Amino acid sequence: MSSDRPLKVALFGSGRIGQVHARNIADHPDLELAWIADPFIKGAQDLAAATGALAVETADEVFANADLDAIIIGSPTPTHVDLISRAAAAGIAALCEKPIDLDIDRVRVCRDQIRGTNSPLMLGFNRRFDPNFASLRARVEAGEIGGLEQLTIISRDPAPAPKAYIETSGGIFRDQSIHDLDMARFFVPDIVEVSATGSNLFCDYIEEAGDFDSVVINLRGRGGEQITIINSRHSAYGHDQRLEAFGSEGLLTAGNMTPTTVRKYSAAGTEESDPYLPFFLERYGQAYRNELDSFVKAIRAGTSCSPGFDDGVMALVLANAAEESARSGRVVTIGKEEG
Amino acid sequence: MSSDRPLKVALFGSGRIGQVHARNIADHPDLELAWIADPFIKGAQDLAAATGALAVETADEVFANADLDAIIIGSPTPTHVDLISRAAAAGIAALCEKPIDLDIDRVRVCRDQIRGTNSPLMLGFNRRFDPNFASLRARVEAGEIGGLEQLTIISRDPAPAPKAYIETSGGIFRDQSIHDLDMARFFVPDIVEVSATGSNLFCDYIEEAGDFDSVVINLRGRGGEQITIINSRHSAYGHDQRLEAFGSEGLLTAGNMTPTTVRKYSAAGTEESDPYLPFFLERYGQAYRNELDSFVKAIRAGTSCSPGFDDGVMALVLANAAEESARSGRVVTIGKEEG
Amino acid sequence: MSSDRPLKVALFGSGRIGQVHARNIADHPDLELAWIADPFIKGAQDLAAATGALAVETADEVFANADLDAIIIGSPTPTHVDLISRAAAAGIAALCEKPIDLDIDRVRVCRDQIRGTNSPLMLGFNRRFDPNFASLRARVEAGEIGGLEQLTIISRDPAPAPKAYIETSGGIFRDQSIHDLDMARFFVPDIVEVSATGSNLFCDYIEEAGDFDSVVINLRGRGGEQITIINSRHSAYGHDQRLEAFGSEGLLTAGNMTPTTVRKYSAAGTEESDPYLPFFLERYGQAYRNELDSFVKAIRAGTSCSPGFDDGVMALVLANAAEESARSGRVVTIGKEEG
Amino acid sequence: MSSDRPLKVALFGSGRIGQVHARNIADHPDLELAWIADPFIKGAQDLAAATGALAVETADEVFANADLDAIIIGSPTPTHVDLISRAAAAGIAALCEKPIDLDIDRVRVCRDQIRGTNSPLMLGFNRRFDPNFASLRARVEAGEIGGLEQLTIISRDPAPAPKAYIETSGGIFRDQSIHDLDMARFFVPDIVEVSATGSNLFCDYIEEAGDFDSVVINLRGRGGEQITIINSRHSAYGHDQRLEAFGSEGLLTAGNMTPTTVRKYSAAGTEESDPYLPFFLERYGQAYRNELDSFVKAIRAGTSCSPGFDDGVMALVLANAAEESARSGRVVTIGKEEG
Repeated sequence: MSSDRPLKVALFGSGRIGQVHARNIADHPDLELAWIADPFIKGAQDLAAATGALAVETADEVFANADLDAIIIGSPTPTHVDLISRAAAAGIAALCEKPIDLDIDRVRVCRDQIRGTNSPLMLGFNRRFDPNFASLRARVEAGEIGGLEQLTIISRDPAPAPKAYIETSGGIFRDQSIHDLDMARFFVPDIVEVSATGSNLFCDYIEEAGDFDSVVINLRGRGGEQITIINSRHSAYGHDQRLEAFGSEGLLTAGNMTPTTVRKYSAAGTEESDPYLPFFLERYGQAYRNELDSFVKAIRAGTSCSPGFDDGVMALVLANAAEESARSGRVVTIGKEEG
Repeated sequence: MSSDRPLKVALFGSGRIGQVHARNIADHPDLELAWIADPFIKGAQDLAAATGALAVETADEVFANADLDAIIIGSPTPTHVDLISRAAAAGIAALCEKPIDLDIDRVRVCRDQIRGTNSPLMLGFNRRFDPNFASLRARVEAGEIGGLEQLTIISRDPAPAPKAYIETSGGIFRDQSIHDLDMARFFVPDIVEVSATGSNLFCDYIEEAGDFDSVVINLRGRGGEQITIINSRHSAYGHDQRLEAFGSEGLLTAGNMTPTTVRKYSAAGTEESDPYLPFFLERYGQAYRNELDSFVKAIRAGTSCSPGFDDGVMALVLANAAEESARSGRVVTIGKEEG
Repeated sequence: MSSDRPLKVALFGSGRIGQVHARNIADHPDLELAWIADPFIKGAQDLAAATGALAVETADEVFANADLDAIIIGSPTPTHVDLISRAAAAGIAALCEKPIDLDIDRVRVCRDQIRGTNSPLMLGFNRRFDPNFASLRARVEAGEIGGLEQLTIISRDPAPAPKAYIETSGGIFRDQSIHDLDMARFFVPDIVEVSATGSNLFCDYIEEAGDFDSVVINLRGRGGEQITIINSRHSAYGHDQRLEAFGSEGLLTAGNMTPTTVRKYSAAGTEESDPYLPFFLERYGQAYRNELDSFVKAIRAGTSCSPGFDDGVMALVLANAAEESARSGRVVTIGKEEG
Repeated sequence: MSSDRPLKVALFGSGRIGQVHARNIADHPDLELAWIADPFIKGAQDLAAATGALAVETADEVFANADLDAIIIGSPTPTHVDLISRAAAAGIAALCEKPIDLDIDRVRVCRDQIRGTNSPLMLGFNRRFDPNFASLRARVEAGEIGGLEQLTIISRDPAPAPKAYIETSGGIFRDQSIHDLDMARFFVPDIVEVSATGSNLFCDYIEEAGDFDSVVINLRGRGGEQITIINSRHSAYGHDQRLEAFGSEGLLTAGNMTPTTVRKYSAAGTEESDPYLPFFLERYGQAYRNELDSFVKAIRAGTSCSPGFDDGVMALVLANAAEESARSGRVVTIGKEEG
């Protein structure tokens, strides 16, 4: 691949996450946003107008271009496996938003299809690229807290997604927790046991959809490491995204982010900080940019992407196991063959 | 009971916890430490010399005194049920260290024995009286965070107890977690489900004793509340005792305590605080004093003590359920009759 | 002096500060509060009743006792020099509240009177014994931040003292700032220059009394160290008592104290801590106990007390210089002979 | 001025600050970096190559362009007044780095020259655009802490500038403190008194240059407000840039910034945060972008820029007064005519 010009990129999807990627692609010195594909062509056109790209309706129009270098998949989940397979077959690099698919069987079919291909393929677990979590993990890897023993992941969205979204989301484990399950694997890749509980505490339409609004998941790593994930579909004080890594020699924590360092002291209370950044677009703004940059660097270096397809598979396997455990009240064992 | 002189108190046990109680009784304006009972008479004598009490060897010598008002039970666990029963029979107020007993059957026999008696009986779940946790719970009760949905209790001891202690401790659930199980019930009294996992991560003699050094417990309240307890038998940075109450309108947290407010800023790092208070004697010093004062106030007011005998029973029931779940990999349901 | 019985102590003054000392004396194992002297005999009697002391009206009644070991002077400022002189003449240890006197000439006469006597004499600059400030200073002395270069002392009272108090207080420099001037000397004993400014920002009766409600003082140590004191007679968020020591290799800070570690997170703000401890009785409770203990230890060890009389003199000299500078707009030089 | 194409901008200076501006201009959607002027043409050429601008050596080559919309002055201080005057005469908008000049007489001549012109002119006091300080000031303006009474500005550079820089810097007051003096005026525009002290504590070549390495400045506003500035030319723990606004109803503080939210807890200490952002390029990265955006918005809206030329004059007047006070030991009064 030519390295003397920026990579020509096609973006699938012009929705919320597509807009994040479009802006980041436009700002990246080694990327050129050439095409934006969306069957909802008005969305593609608006975004294309703002970024200088060409709006198209179909994947065919994208893959027909001989100078296509990479695709970013931000279109709805059901489109993911086809686009991944197609990019792999064409030898085109792909960065795909999570999840690969909600159906593990479709995911496995896709895996079989792309076996043997070797174009770069990256899964969009953006939180691995959050400067806070990435720094914390690097310090754990460097041995700062000795052996990792317990990992606590607190992850609460600001407010429930709309009813329509919930109904096709695949459920909290596959939709929300999946990020945290991948974060768990970022620290402890080899998970052997999953247990979970779910509750319905505040949102009627989530309950009516047969889904939970609040869950707790426990994972065990092969080395006995204990990982706890605490999720809620709402949080009055903003996007609550924290992580604690406890080891034999100490603890490392990563906290939430405020827009400023200003604190207030009054008769009512002291040291009051700003409300936290509201949601993932603000909280993970830098993470999305770092993710994209990692993708570009892997393409240029010819190395494999991380997180990759198998990480997407394992996150879904764990989400399914958590759901099963929450329904059955039993620990679910993860076999090596399950990924 | 005469209110114009301090209550005459007998203390059972002159060990570490006995010494804490002895000092607090001596400092309390409405208590007189009259007797210290310990078959290891040297310990009783030393402590008596420092406090002006009379050292005795047996419970008989204590209960023979017509002016005995109350007993504080800080002697080994196997002595608890007998002393409780005896105090109840004699109409003497008692404050008993946790647990009532390691054997739920003995606890139930004791319960039957004291049924119908009405002398004040308090269980020494001292953490309910920690100013941080007590303040947090009062604010939850006052509705500051709306409905309570998720409670996270992190509780790590600084270092494993010695091998000999571990072997007779009843296991981490009944020995260490029991405090956190009671803390859970302080916020959500009616627990209906328990699940737990245990790991052996760092201490050989705990593993050899068939016990865990690290556990995670999940509880569910009748209202669906989710409670997570994270325990470890060690913590490099001091006694780690934290609590987070998450509700529909916000979050309240209680953190660890430092001896001073001094912070250091250098090229190596910034805002570094002191190491945390090392263990329960320092961390819960004020809690023990508040607990004793609550006991005295209940006696003087003729009201029932809280936490009481039934709280001690329920904490043990939950500890047993957690152990069963960790061994079986299944959720354990708590019936109303189980307490 | 006999060391096999507690020291017999007389307390002068039964007001707010006298009550603090009375309680601390009563709690100290090596002190016996034998006499409480106050011409307002009702106050002395009430306090004596609560502590088992004997209430007397006059100093004569105190000094007549052959077994008197030490006096604590918590009576009004004008009585200080006489009591100090009398204790010195009688060879009795004395702990005197600041200031020695508001009139530097009276102080110098007193100094001449006690010259050559050698009974222990301690000045009640209690903040030197605050665990936070004492720890910070010990760490500076240990070289943790290299050479000390800049010291910032922020000290704000919660609310102005009443009009009557202000009128006889000697002014903000001699009444409030004097504590901070001593704190400056705790770190940098040899001050060579003083400048100050004063403002009237919020309290009419302070302005009518010809006094300031807000002042800033700059000191320079012989080694060029720069010390900044920022004072206000009010503070909406509680007693604001902070200190920053900046050195060639880092910074150490000591912050305010909260009753608990609880923090609140809501849509309005995050990490909100409790209001700070309201005033000196709460904030410096431990400091008063530590101060008393240091006094007792010096008596028992036969060593000189610190802070001593000369520290009281120098604090007043600096307060006078600050007042002069604020009035004249000029730096005031402190000569060696001025103490 | 045409609003349907980006403004064409010329940048003067290709040094450290020029590079910051070049990158920000390139990233701004409403700016086109057309020319970079530097007599050190190699610097201009390198920066032009990276940004697509044209490198030129002289101001004549810049002002010869009829489509020039604005200039950004990041060249050495002695060039500022000529470029400002020239831009004003040509009706070109200008954003000039502080200070206008080190010589107040040259500044006044410049002021006379540009009187009557009305092209937008902005002074580069970038800290006014720091999100932390800007937020804090907006909250003070909104009345959150009642009337502002005391303002404390702590501002320490990470390490002394090189000897050659120091010798032509104009001294710490005009070079470093001038930012803080403007920050003081951001909160309290009308300053009536200045006093200052300076020390030489750690840097020989600063002392040899007749300059101070550590200074403290006190300002008084017309309403009696007290402002304290504490400066040092070094700071072991990074760029120390803090601000406290104390008012009748509370306190607002803005602290330093860390790259991540990660904190470490070990046996050595707890809650240790990252080292602070090292220097102004990192600390004020967002401030420079916001400043540029404010400049563009003022141009587009046809409104006057803030801070403007008079703010640059007043900052220099205050710096001169501080120097005079530090040399004379006297308070310096600022008359209305002095700006």
